[in-house]
Amino acid sequence: MTDASSLVERRRAASQRQFLDVATAEDALQRFWQAADPQPLGDESVSLDEALNRVLASDIQSPVDVPGFDRANVDGFAVRAQDTVGAREDAPVVLALTDDVLTPGVEPCSTVTAGFASVIATGGMVPRGADAVVLVEDTELVERDGRQRVQIGKPLPAGAFIAFAGTDVGRGETVLRAGQLLTSREIGVLAAIGLAEVPVFRRPHVAVISTGDELVQPGQPLAAGQVYDSNGSIVASALREIGCEPVRLGALPDEYEAQQKALRHALDCDAVILSGGTSKGAGDLSYDVVSTLSDPGVIVHGVAIKPGKPLCLAVTGSKPVVILPGFPTSAIFTFHQFVAPVLRAMAGMPVQTHERVVAELPMRLSSERGRTEFSMVSLMRTDDGFAAYPMGKSSGAVTAFSKADGFIRVDAQTELLPAGSKVEVQLLSRSLAPADLVTIGSHCVGLDYLLQQLQKEGLATKSMHVGSQGGLAAARRGECDIAGIHLMDPESGEYNTPYLEPGMRLLKGYRRMQGFVYRRGDARFTGIATPQQAVTAALGDADCVMVNRNAGSGTRVLIDELLHGAQPAGYAVQTKSHNAVATAVAQGRADWGIAIDTVARLYELEFIPLQEEHYDFVIPESRWELPVVQRFVALLQNPDVQSGLQALGFQR
Amino acid sequence: MTDASSLVERRRAASQRQFLDVATAEDALQRFWQAADPQPLGDESVSLDEALNRVLASDIQSPVDVPGFDRANVDGFAVRAQDTVGAREDAPVVLALTDDVLTPGVEPCSTVTAGFASVIATGGMVPRGADAVVLVEDTELVERDGRQRVQIGKPLPAGAFIAFAGTDVGRGETVLRAGQLLTSREIGVLAAIGLAEVPVFRRPHVAVISTGDELVQPGQPLAAGQVYDSNGSIVASALREIGCEPVRLGALPDEYEAQQKALRHALDCDAVILSGGTSKGAGDLSYDVVSTLSDPGVIVHGVAIKPGKPLCLAVTGSKPVVILPGFPTSAIFTFHQFVAPVLRAMAGMPVQTHERVVAELPMRLSSERGRTEFSMVSLMRTDDGFAAYPMGKSSGAVTAFSKADGFIRVDAQTELLPAGSKVEVQLLSRSLAPADLVTIGSHCVGLDYLLQQLQKEGLATKSMHVGSQGGLAAARRGECDIAGIHLMDPESGEYNTPYLEPGMRLLKGYRRMQGFVYRRGDARFTGIATPQQAVTAALGDADCVMVNRNAGSGTRVLIDELLHGAQPAGYAVQTKSHNAVATAVAQGRADWGIAIDTVARLYELEFIPLQEEHYDFVIPESRWELPVVQRFVALLQNPDVQSGLQALGFQR
Repeated sequence: MTDASSLVERRRAASQRQFLDVATAEDALQRFWQAADPQPLGDESVSLDEALNRVLASDIQSPVDVPGFDRANVDGFAVRAQDTVGAREDAPVVLALTDDVLTPGVEPCSTVTAGFASVIATGGMVPRGADAVVLVEDTELVERDGRQRVQIGKPLPAGAFIAFAGTDVGRGETVLRAGQLLTSREIGVLAAIGLAEVPVFRRPHVAVISTGDELVQPGQPLAAGQVYDSNGSIVASALREIGCEPVRLGALPDEYEAQQKALRHALDCDAVILSGGTSKGAGDLSYDVVSTLSDPGVIVHGVAIKPGKPLCLAVTGSKPVVILPGFPTSAIFTFHQFVAPVLRAMAGMPVQTHERVVAELPMRLSSERGRTEFSMVSLMRTDDGFAAYPMGKSSGAVTAFSKADGFIRVDAQTELLPAGSKVEVQLLSRSLAPADLVTIGSHCVGLDYLLQQLQKEGLATKSMHVGSQGGLAAARRGECDIAGIHLMDPESGEYNTPYLEPGMRLLKGYRRMQGFVYRRGDARFTGIATPQQAVTAALGDADCVMVNRNAGSGTRVLIDELLHGAQPAGYAVQTKSHNAVATAVAQGRADWGIAIDTVARLYELEFIPLQEEHYDFVIPESRWELPVVQRFVALLQNPDVQSGLQALGFQR
Repeated sequence: MTDASSLVERRRAASQRQFLDVATAEDALQRFWQAADPQPLGDESVSLDEALNRVLASDIQSPVDVPGFDRANVDGFAVRAQDTVGAREDAPVVLALTDDVLTPGVEPCSTVTAGFASVIATGGMVPRGADAVVLVEDTELVERDGRQRVQIGKPLPAGAFIAFAGTDVGRGETVLRAGQLLTSREIGVLAAIGLAEVPVFRRPHVAVISTGDELVQPGQPLAAGQVYDSNGSIVASALREIGCEPVRLGALPDEYEAQQKALRHALDCDAVILSGGTSKGAGDLSYDVVSTLSDPGVIVHGVAIKPGKPLCLAVTGSKPVVILPGFPTSAIFTFHQFVAPVLRAMAGMPVQTHERVVAELPMRLSSERGRTEFSMVSLMRTDDGFAAYPMGKSSGAVTAFSKADGFIRVDAQTELLPAGSKVEVQLLSRSLAPADLVTIGSHCVGLDYLLQQLQKEGLATKSMHVGSQGGLAAARRGECDIAGIHLMDPESGEYNTPYLEPGMRLLKGYRRMQGFVYRRGDARFTGIATPQQAVTAALGDADCVMVNRNAGSGTRVLIDELLHGAQPAGYAVQTKSHNAVATAVAQGRADWGIAIDTVARLYELEFIPLQEEHYDFVIPESRWELPVVQRFVALLQNPDVQSGLQALGFQR
């Protein structure tokens, strides 16, 4: 019991300490920046071939003129413009030729004097005396007095078809400035002025350490209660994206000595990023280790934001040391908001600007008073702008960050943003990825399969899973092209059609079988033939735990009908998907639930068929004629696609 | 002479051949795409650490649930929600503790039955029977009957602080689809589902060959008439940017056998990109080599576009073989427009979308009838949108592409876009690089130095050099923050002030010395003390060639005053910068010109002072109070900056 009470006491102490010290987001950013005072780490010279995506460390003055000489821009003859004055097709000027044949790379021997011309090719060096080039198409070669001459049928202005030396880049001109990120365009300029090597800022080496007893590296098997170390990979990749070099030091257990040793080693790098496991306890341990640093040591521990409250920001001897929260979305969000700006400055990268768009919230969003909340959203284009769908996943969800287009900020003072609010969305990427087809509604493995076929054709699709009712609402508001729904009208027993509203069309999808699922070998249900009998058996055993679905889902309607008002153990556990139901049963956290046969098979559960339901597609009239929607319609007619759906357990 | 006439005949033939076969831009794109029929080249497996910026080759279904178990989102106690019904602070519920202490990674031993609770930490596995977690802050540990118990002061809803298994990612769910470009966000998802390796498309290997007798590799010295091979570096970097692996095969002379041998070798790669030197002749030779290919061979030779007319697109055995035009802007423009889409498809990269903005042309733009012209533009923000400044450089200019924000397309039928036209600008990058300070006007090495100081402070600046008059016009239209001008009023002899208009302020800049420049040791001018005497000496020698400046420039006013109406040889060569004047004299293409002493020193020319002129800054009243403008004003007062300017030859 000592173990339990010490754990509890440590947690309580930690939570109280954090509450006392907690900083606002702005304050945390500013204090960390000031303590770190980030500067580029010095220069190194790299060859032009290695310079892509590096940052220039010095201003570059051109050592040469570009072009380096007056250059002919066409094939023809270098002439004195004044010699062509008055030339007409019917009264051409005839000029003698010098001995020069000025192909590129050839230095002229002769000056072009009055009455003379030199043959010149595109890129050739215009000889002294000449001030124009006449196009070969505008000339004839003629023989006169035993010598070849050129006949010119129209007058030329001085400077015609000549690029003068230094007009692109003048010698001594600053062509690029320190801090410039080098893309192919800048590399072209550096090559044109003849630089084979360029001075670039050294990339900061950043140690990446994950901590947590529960962490397992990708590729290894997971035991119960363990999780994959995703933060290590996310942080390492995100570091590369901002011009840093990650130095991965692996995942450490929650042991003080191990972490202290690793931190000492990590401080050979220019910065250190630790990320806790999912436990606040692990964060405390890392904090204990980091809090031994000085000069100046910990700057911020705890920020009044969600996600990301346990963030710890420290600096030692100008090296930033950071403990990111363990949950992936919190970790990556706080990395980008608080840590990346400092590391970018150390890498010499230009300050990142974030694009923003204004969008409308399709549903209300509640928030906790007293801390700034950042809510990941997915943007859907509407007829007059954007709708911002909150991802609605917890900070533990690694997919929240990966599927979001951006996030909105809800002030510490705001408790509720009503549906229809205009919000400002800060984009995660520099620009929006436009989707060819947007689906919003109930999630189904069958719809997944259909979208996959479209993706194979190169079409970009975007999905939000907000349940059948949410899909209908999105279709009404014009936020989606297609809403997947499976709603039974309790009066008529008819699926979907009764829910159609004016301006919507119904596209018949497929049927799928709902049923009672339980673990293989569970004697309570073995041999039972109908779901109703199975439920009766379940209700007869007080230890038998169910797993429920969320209110408003089509499946919940079925469950409530089966239970006739009973609320057995587990009724309150309202999961949001067929997969969640099947997992709970497969892992023994519950004993039964209602789910579709496709997932029952996936999780190797027993399945007693209950009701075949219709999963159909609601399409706003205004979208019906879109080529991508028609492509979707055609897909459902395709025999190969139909067999694909059938193989998954869906009947057309 | 045979040499001259054969060169001329070859050019003429080439130009006629191209004219007959020439394709429209759309036609060229479509024919090349159809012949190449680009497909990803197959898969390879890479470790997650190497997967950044690669393209996923297969759909990824999750092999696990994420979370893999019902996970506590806070530190506290796992309980049955129904046990907390009715709990109040003054009438708390007291529960016994099981033996479990569920830190992350620990598998529960006990089921939570009525009246019991298990200690659990954030990330811990919720035990069977429990359906809620109570926050440690909302509890007290109490001792009763010799056992530690937990006292809970408020009721909990079922599901409180639990992330149910599979709610982030369900087992079997498609988490990412083939064709997805992997950023740190996707890599996080792949790590979270435990993948250590991922299938990605193989990167196309693309051979890069430059051709041209005049080409010299960066880092080597240039002889007269030679140019640096910039296309090799630009194309190689641009290939990396679109997911290809460049295989650089160097620069080849204009020799048939050498090129044929190189092409044979290059066809080991998945595609070949040749780029001509600056000569059309070199392009013809490469064309002769490429035209020997079959299956099907050359698809397009010559496209009715500018820049880029000589583009050659071929395919052999499904491998694209391309000859880009030699001039850098033509090469990189045609690469992006015609070649990159095909190579991206081979790399499996998503189709690139191009952002567009509408802008106003501040000046008229003329275009050649009969071919589609693409004009590189620099965008300046105005009060009500954007102004698009045509870069006005030839296709030989490597800086045109590197400094442009985008380009506009002028149809083959359009000969002139008047000033004020609304044009659609296709951006070169996915988003606009905003500048903190925009300067438009006359170019000066001193202004360059001042902007450099601002850049050192992290401010982004953008400059367009359109002459003093152009700068004044830009200031009038609100397109710039600062216009650098040096215009003498011929009446009063006063600089700049007479040109001010209402709504503009003048910020005094510095003085610079204009003078007569000539090569060292030119006996015609040696010992002469005044520019007027030097000009008299020049006019007395018919072989003495001058170099002029463009009409409208401040320097041209000085020149015309000196010449008193005379127009000696070279008068028609109207260069656009001090640098161009100095280069012409230094290289012997001209014997004298008028330029500032800074460039005279740079090019080691003799200098006879003519006139001190005032280079000042015109600032629209509406911009005066901008912090960045005030920073610029302060810079000019800074003693260090003043000595810096002085060292360059500019007097405050």
